[in-house]
Amino acid sequence: MSTEIKNIAVFTSGGDAPGMNAGIRAVVRACVYYKKNIFGVYRGYEGMIDNDIVKLDARSVSNIIQRGGTILKSARSEEFKTKEGRKKAYENLKSRDIDALIAIGGNGTFTGLHYFGQEYDIPTICLPGTIDNDLPGMDYTIGYDTATNTAVEAIDKIRDTALSHNRLFFIEVMGRHSGYIALNSGIAGGAVAIMMPEDSMTVDELLVKLDAGAEKNKKSSLVVVAEGGQEGTVWEIAEQVKKKAPYYDTKVTILGHLQRGGAPSYFDRVLAGRLGVGAVEALLDGKRDVMIGIKDNKLVFIDFEQIDNKRHEVDPEAVKLAKILAI
Amino acid sequence: MSTEIKNIAVFTSGGDAPGMNAGIRAVVRACVYYKKNIFGVYRGYEGMIDNDIVKLDARSVSNIIQRGGTILKSARSEEFKTKEGRKKAYENLKSRDIDALIAIGGNGTFTGLHYFGQEYDIPTICLPGTIDNDLPGMDYTIGYDTATNTAVEAIDKIRDTALSHNRLFFIEVMGRHSGYIALNSGIAGGAVAIMMPEDSMTVDELLVKLDAGAEKNKKSSLVVVAEGGQEGTVWEIAEQVKKKAPYYDTKVTILGHLQRGGAPSYFDRVLAGRLGVGAVEALLDGKRDVMIGIKDNKLVFIDFEQIDNKRHEVDPEAVKLAKILAI
Amino acid sequence: MSTEIKNIAVFTSGGDAPGMNAGIRAVVRACVYYKKNIFGVYRGYEGMIDNDIVKLDARSVSNIIQRGGTILKSARSEEFKTKEGRKKAYENLKSRDIDALIAIGGNGTFTGLHYFGQEYDIPTICLPGTIDNDLPGMDYTIGYDTATNTAVEAIDKIRDTALSHNRLFFIEVMGRHSGYIALNSGIAGGAVAIMMPEDSMTVDELLVKLDAGAEKNKKSSLVVVAEGGQEGTVWEIAEQVKKKAPYYDTKVTILGHLQRGGAPSYFDRVLAGRLGVGAVEALLDGKRDVMIGIKDNKLVFIDFEQIDNKRHEVDPEAVKLAKILAI
Amino acid sequence: MSTEIKNIAVFTSGGDAPGMNAGIRAVVRACVYYKKNIFGVYRGYEGMIDNDIVKLDARSVSNIIQRGGTILKSARSEEFKTKEGRKKAYENLKSRDIDALIAIGGNGTFTGLHYFGQEYDIPTICLPGTIDNDLPGMDYTIGYDTATNTAVEAIDKIRDTALSHNRLFFIEVMGRHSGYIALNSGIAGGAVAIMMPEDSMTVDELLVKLDAGAEKNKKSSLVVVAEGGQEGTVWEIAEQVKKKAPYYDTKVTILGHLQRGGAPSYFDRVLAGRLGVGAVEALLDGKRDVMIGIKDNKLVFIDFEQIDNKRHEVDPEAVKLAKILAI
Repeated sequence: MSTEIKNIAVFTSGGDAPGMNAGIRAVVRACVYYKKNIFGVYRGYEGMIDNDIVKLDARSVSNIIQRGGTILKSARSEEFKTKEGRKKAYENLKSRDIDALIAIGGNGTFTGLHYFGQEYDIPTICLPGTIDNDLPGMDYTIGYDTATNTAVEAIDKIRDTALSHNRLFFIEVMGRHSGYIALNSGIAGGAVAIMMPEDSMTVDELLVKLDAGAEKNKKSSLVVVAEGGQEGTVWEIAEQVKKKAPYYDTKVTILGHLQRGGAPSYFDRVLAGRLGVGAVEALLDGKRDVMIGIKDNKLVFIDFEQIDNKRHEVDPEAVKLAKILAI
Repeated sequence: MSTEIKNIAVFTSGGDAPGMNAGIRAVVRACVYYKKNIFGVYRGYEGMIDNDIVKLDARSVSNIIQRGGTILKSARSEEFKTKEGRKKAYENLKSRDIDALIAIGGNGTFTGLHYFGQEYDIPTICLPGTIDNDLPGMDYTIGYDTATNTAVEAIDKIRDTALSHNRLFFIEVMGRHSGYIALNSGIAGGAVAIMMPEDSMTVDELLVKLDAGAEKNKKSSLVVVAEGGQEGTVWEIAEQVKKKAPYYDTKVTILGHLQRGGAPSYFDRVLAGRLGVGAVEALLDGKRDVMIGIKDNKLVFIDFEQIDNKRHEVDPEAVKLAKILAI
Repeated sequence: MSTEIKNIAVFTSGGDAPGMNAGIRAVVRACVYYKKNIFGVYRGYEGMIDNDIVKLDARSVSNIIQRGGTILKSARSEEFKTKEGRKKAYENLKSRDIDALIAIGGNGTFTGLHYFGQEYDIPTICLPGTIDNDLPGMDYTIGYDTATNTAVEAIDKIRDTALSHNRLFFIEVMGRHSGYIALNSGIAGGAVAIMMPEDSMTVDELLVKLDAGAEKNKKSSLVVVAEGGQEGTVWEIAEQVKKKAPYYDTKVTILGHLQRGGAPSYFDRVLAGRLGVGAVEALLDGKRDVMIGIKDNKLVFIDFEQIDNKRHEVDPEAVKLAKILAI
Repeated sequence: MSTEIKNIAVFTSGGDAPGMNAGIRAVVRACVYYKKNIFGVYRGYEGMIDNDIVKLDARSVSNIIQRGGTILKSARSEEFKTKEGRKKAYENLKSRDIDALIAIGGNGTFTGLHYFGQEYDIPTICLPGTIDNDLPGMDYTIGYDTATNTAVEAIDKIRDTALSHNRLFFIEVMGRHSGYIALNSGIAGGAVAIMMPEDSMTVDELLVKLDAGAEKNKKSSLVVVAEGGQEGTVWEIAEQVKKKAPYYDTKVTILGHLQRGGAPSYFDRVLAGRLGVGAVEALLDGKRDVMIGIKDNKLVFIDFEQIDNKRHEVDPEAVKLAKILAI
């Protein structure tokens, strides 16, 4: 019976995202509030296997809410994919009477958690922590708001130099399978075009758009490209544009991993706080094997089947919005 | 008939908010997209009376999306409250065949727009532009996200010095009638307590909380206070704490107008874009005399009666969340 | 003989300043490099008396270079002003064979260090850590560059709202006895006037300047005021302006303690690095009872007599520059 | 005779740098102060040839001090390298009685200005505007301080994710011929190693350093690489490390053009202000054909011969400092 939960462990896994620390803090503080013991597992499933687990209290998570990254660190674990690995992990938990798990991570993290929870009959809940905002069933993942702001701040800086030289800039943002950062940093950055997995603008279509802008006296342009776009890498796209339209002074910038770091925005901190406390309350309330999220401002709980191999599609309305604004 | 609208004017009014420029840009670009003429009115109703009105095109709003403030400026107008003033304003619009108005502002702006639209039978629509997030019927106003991030960045800086000296800091944020900025910057800033119009913590209750923290070895504390709180000004609250608990090393900071400025966050830019385009489309579609907003990720249209003298109340769940996290 | 130094202690004292952590890190790493033991004293002289002293190594100062505040904390100590207090402090040092002291702080810190070093014949050296840049004999103190950037970023935000409303803003920056932050944030913030301890503009002179600007079509103005100005507090100045020139829409903002916090600028980190390593090398080289600084890009060592009760005066050329730029 | 100068033109050329606008503003305001006419030339030498020249006044440069880029734009001009091109340029200046030129740019800008000034006997002066800090005879160029802070802020973000995953990050910063940004962003970013044109660490030496760190329990490392380093591109260096030491989890980030943009730091704004006013005063005082700079806090004037084909070498002391701090 779930109300008997007494010892919870929390960990982060997969790519780190700003706000993970705020999520850890919220889980820890909620456990203290509800008088449960709380443990932190370092380096995700890897540390669970290596027995890298410590007891936490309210002060353990003081002054981390504003920090990027994750104090519990993250890692990928090959060993956890093996039966032996998972057994070791389970025994390390059992030796501390840990009877429930809260993970913060993305799709892969939830998948591991789902199968582990089923294998060893341990209640689990997952918080969505990924900058990509690619999880279905919820509005926002932890880290996405910050990462998009970081991308926009970088685009604003590039705009300064693009304007000064009347240049065409291609800016690659993160999002291997998801255009969320690209679409929204593109709209917010005033991009003339956005190329992303979900939207199949070709290089020729792009050139039509650029030339139309040039005719209307547009001097400099920014094109935002998601790393997982259909038209190839940002280098390939820029190369094709250079060949077909050498009259543009073309430059490429790849924002890269700086999008993962930095102090989280207020939004990601509050979101992580709400989800962290909500996860503890849900566990104590008997929920298990779900991803917790927020949709339409309400807590929702999403089953593994609803997330597995599914995507959070970008809104076609937003794609149209981007086109109107770039006129 | 609304489909006959050909000439739209846009203006900003009331206190400025980051994202207003993104809203102006969206209105202008949408008008160009839908082949309508678009005019900009400077200094709100004041400029409408003074005939300070210019024609705009897509390039007029280039490179403003990232700027705080409003390129159309804002002002309060006593003259617009008189029949003569409004008549002058109307005639200036009429002389340009302006047949619809889009305003960006808060409650006061919408009130003026409502009565003016009725008096002269002119279609109007209002975008919510105010950092306070105090308008009912919608989730967020333009500027609130940026202002809260600005407050949190300031709180993060103050935390550095509070920690170094084991101090108790009272930080006043904006929000004369609304605790939104206080509540969410307080949660995100890791405040031990939040004092705001909607929540009636007394100084004595605050002291109980502070002393409990000190006992649990909390060395420094931040208290966020909304400017319109029930327990008096931040100075008065700090003074009472100093008297009753002189063992705290107490300091006060008032964040003030810097919360109004700065480059808007991606969220405010995208929100303003969506509302600006949505407002033009709604006008062309026959909507009039409404505030446009977003609720649960969908466009909504709010009648004057629903907003007049009403508030956007903070969520009691969020107030509880703040308490759990500050344990 | 100084080459016998084997155990050094480092501490921070007085008001904290961004870059103090970079200074601590540099002292620690230099000690490791030169194979000396290094101790950290918490809370300045207070912790020295309370025996709050720990051994540090290269990893103790990992990942602190980017953090504002001071991990060693700071405090004011009344007890250290007594003979008994200093005796306790000395005995705590002696029990660890600590044979040299490095402090990071301002004038008061150096004063305490000077007398303590003389009283107990212990080699000492002080790094200038204060945002005020008020120490004579050197170009910059640690923290000043960051604090001035913080002030300028805040002024930039206030400019957005001042411009939108055609307002006159009075902005108070830190600097009780020194106009460095005011002068340079004023020049960089595009202030129409700067009021500071070293420069005696009266309110009437200010009004002449403001009116001249208004005549030349200047719509909004920022006046930067150092907290220790001769014409009274920023409130008093603004009040006088309101009385004498009610046609200005006047607002006041006090930046306050947020100027003390935040991630240090590259400049402050490099300065702290250079001074921290320089201090260890100087101690090992026999220098004692000096403040270390940089003047004209070279390390300099300043005796107590040169600093005691003296100020770092602002450059009259810079005051003239401010006037030309505000034309 | 130089005191007869009445009409001055200002322009920006070469790669843009933050603070160029502050420099333009200072030149314009100083001309107004000294009652000289001031013209702005758009797009550098290109606009001089195209007659893209406008008259400026004190208000033309309002509210630009905080903006990155250059309102006068910049461009490279092939035509200016021809006699005919320069003749056209001269005639456009002459038609407005422009009798002196102030340029803001780097080495190439100064070279063009030098030969043009000699060819047409026109007094000229150049302000150092380049993020690279590669001009000899002075301490800092306009834009360097901001670009280094931008690099450090990005490095701080990357540190968050490096730490969370125990990774080795290679971060490429700008500086084709100069290691200034690399060296100082590396020191300030806490890099374990810095690879730059002036310092010839090999990949094998780097590996020795990395392995030593790993042995001392250093979990994550940042290596800063200048784009013009001797060991190849950042990709080539990372590739070699991956081959020789596959046990590191290696990632590459190229900061790129975002280093050129953004609001200038206080330092760059004040530097640009001092140099802009100084340039006008120097011209009026008879100086010509020099680069103006600041060395040891004093204005200096540097002849073409002193700059042509020379570099501003990084300080070997700073290289040593970087090594001690990375222990």
